[in-house]
Amino acid sequence: MQVTIRGRAKHFRTVAFDEPSREVRLIEQRLLPHEFRVISTRDFRATARAIRDMVVRGAGAIGATAGYGLAQGALAFRGRNLKRFDAYVTRVFESLRDARPTAVDPVNAMLDVRRKMRAGTTVAEQQALALTAAEDFADEDVAHCRALGEAGAPLIREGMRVLTHCNAGWLAFVDIGSATAPLYAAQQLGRKFHVYCDETRPRSQGATLTAWELSQQKISHQIIADNAAGWLFAQGGIDLVIVGSDRTLGRTGEVANKIGTYTKAVLAKRHSVPFYVAIPLSTIDWNLRGGGEIPIEERDSSEVLGAWGVTKSGRREYVRVANPNSQAYNPGFDVTPPDLITGIITPAGIFRPRELWKQRRLLGG
Amino acid sequence: MQVTIRGRAKHFRTVAFDEPSREVRLIEQRLLPHEFRVISTRDFRATARAIRDMVVRGAGAIGATAGYGLAQGALAFRGRNLKRFDAYVTRVFESLRDARPTAVDPVNAMLDVRRKMRAGTTVAEQQALALTAAEDFADEDVAHCRALGEAGAPLIREGMRVLTHCNAGWLAFVDIGSATAPLYAAQQLGRKFHVYCDETRPRSQGATLTAWELSQQKISHQIIADNAAGWLFAQGGIDLVIVGSDRTLGRTGEVANKIGTYTKAVLAKRHSVPFYVAIPLSTIDWNLRGGGEIPIEERDSSEVLGAWGVTKSGRREYVRVANPNSQAYNPGFDVTPPDLITGIITPAGIFRPRELWKQRRLLGG
Repeated sequence: MQVTIRGRAKHFRTVAFDEPSREVRLIEQRLLPHEFRVISTRDFRATARAIRDMVVRGAGAIGATAGYGLAQGALAFRGRNLKRFDAYVTRVFESLRDARPTAVDPVNAMLDVRRKMRAGTTVAEQQALALTAAEDFADEDVAHCRALGEAGAPLIREGMRVLTHCNAGWLAFVDIGSATAPLYAAQQLGRKFHVYCDETRPRSQGATLTAWELSQQKISHQIIADNAAGWLFAQGGIDLVIVGSDRTLGRTGEVANKIGTYTKAVLAKRHSVPFYVAIPLSTIDWNLRGGGEIPIEERDSSEVLGAWGVTKSGRREYVRVANPNSQAYNPGFDVTPPDLITGIITPAGIFRPRELWKQRRLLGG
Repeated sequence: MQVTIRGRAKHFRTVAFDEPSREVRLIEQRLLPHEFRVISTRDFRATARAIRDMVVRGAGAIGATAGYGLAQGALAFRGRNLKRFDAYVTRVFESLRDARPTAVDPVNAMLDVRRKMRAGTTVAEQQALALTAAEDFADEDVAHCRALGEAGAPLIREGMRVLTHCNAGWLAFVDIGSATAPLYAAQQLGRKFHVYCDETRPRSQGATLTAWELSQQKISHQIIADNAAGWLFAQGGIDLVIVGSDRTLGRTGEVANKIGTYTKAVLAKRHSVPFYVAIPLSTIDWNLRGGGEIPIEERDSSEVLGAWGVTKSGRREYVRVANPNSQAYNPGFDVTPPDLITGIITPAGIFRPRELWKQRRLLGG
């Protein structure tokens, strides 16, 4: 998407590869929204560090980064011995995988790259194929998000007020995003609308990342405290809700997403406001038999007890807000049942949550 | 309530009068929860400044402070001319009233003190009566909160998990508080229970003031992000909700309270969890005919866009969290309809919200 730097709009992907220098280029997401900077990693170890240290985050984005990192590692190999090359690539794979051990996307991306490499019969051929495969993986991520946006765009009508939660935007993918994709597609069709970004405590991804994205794309928006959505619903101030998902159960239509999503779904239901979840197909889990099986990560108390921001003098600082003697309970995600979800927007079209299983062939299940 | 200072528990009221020195003693609430300090105001002008600058906040607390301030002013008058004394007291009254011009409690408290003063026939008599009346006003606030606590205590059963929102605690009154009163009463009966404090963004009164109060009273509690309550309800983790109210409509049973209250009421209803509102009688508005007539204050964007806290090096600082180019929409309150409220806890007992009007004689309407 476009980012305006010193008055000039320029297109960026969250993750890209610079072939001449063999560097992976990443938007340094830890500095956003206060500073925009693209960093380069010179070798696969630096790329693994960038994944580990959350320079880049979001399922699609870390998948593509790992794919590029594997190609970057492969290209750095000197020699013609295929066996040694293969052992070396395995070490690169493990190093990138271990950077974020619970994430599934880096592994899927790298397995894809490795499978395609094996069509080559020399080291040089496999190196070239690795790069092509990594590029294809990133391009497919973009194509899926674009298709998802086109499927969802008709939902965004002129003048609508749309609520979104957390960040399922282009920063979480290679480009375009999931929950934001229908917004960007509707904007391209010339439609005007307004977006309310839930602040999304405790990590404030709505106030930081989503608001930054929308302001860069010049989409009308306001940030609200998570507490304010209910009042907006009650006043008839919200016409549509679109959120992303970390895991959607193909068998039941239950949606795990950032903590607070369930609350917004309950409010939308009470006020008869359509509630949509936008997902790439890789987010669908075809195995789990119910939301109770989804592990809900309990995160560090400090996230709730304070906030990260920038002081008047421009320093990034964590401030403790809460009572020093109190602890927090901090679940990172919640599960929204299918009866609260109007539809699931996918690159293959919009489905009712309970239809996913019936459509599993179409949806890659 | 008790505050532990250097290992010793001591009883404090939020507001008190020291007769020998004629000073009003106030807990400096702007320093909480990071520092506990009692400040003294030497004359009514300093007391008015403390009200204006929010050293003291909360309906009951500022009412009592204004009452003491009026007595403090009256006691400082030198002379025997009743007419001059009366004109002087009027100036004191106006000065204290103008410190928080939209608040009704200081005016009600001071009218009460002035009415009682007029039974005196000399300046000295009126001065003595002013102090007695101010003390009585503060004591009545405490008595009302205590009665409210006794009415609500039977709701808090052993082992319960109670959710509360914002701060309707003893810091908002002279002592004991409203939403917290049943908790403190149940604790005195020896009951064990656990309280979840909604952080209550954007001003975080739950994470700061309520959590501080509960930790001082040694009540088991955890702070949660406002987003986390829904997940707790869905997991069966909340047995009861108690909140305060800024204005309760006697005619309809609608409750205006801190933004986010409505959302919690909707969640409680979906999960069949009892939702109670605890109020002193002064909070009931017998005039307005519907929630639509309640003015909802829209507050400054900066509250949502950042947070106040303490840095690692101990400085109090505001940090900007949100995207620098984005604005916020920041309604301060919302209105909860009576169908979502199980009961209104008052010093005169617990009533269904629609019963208030029928019981208006009992409830001072």
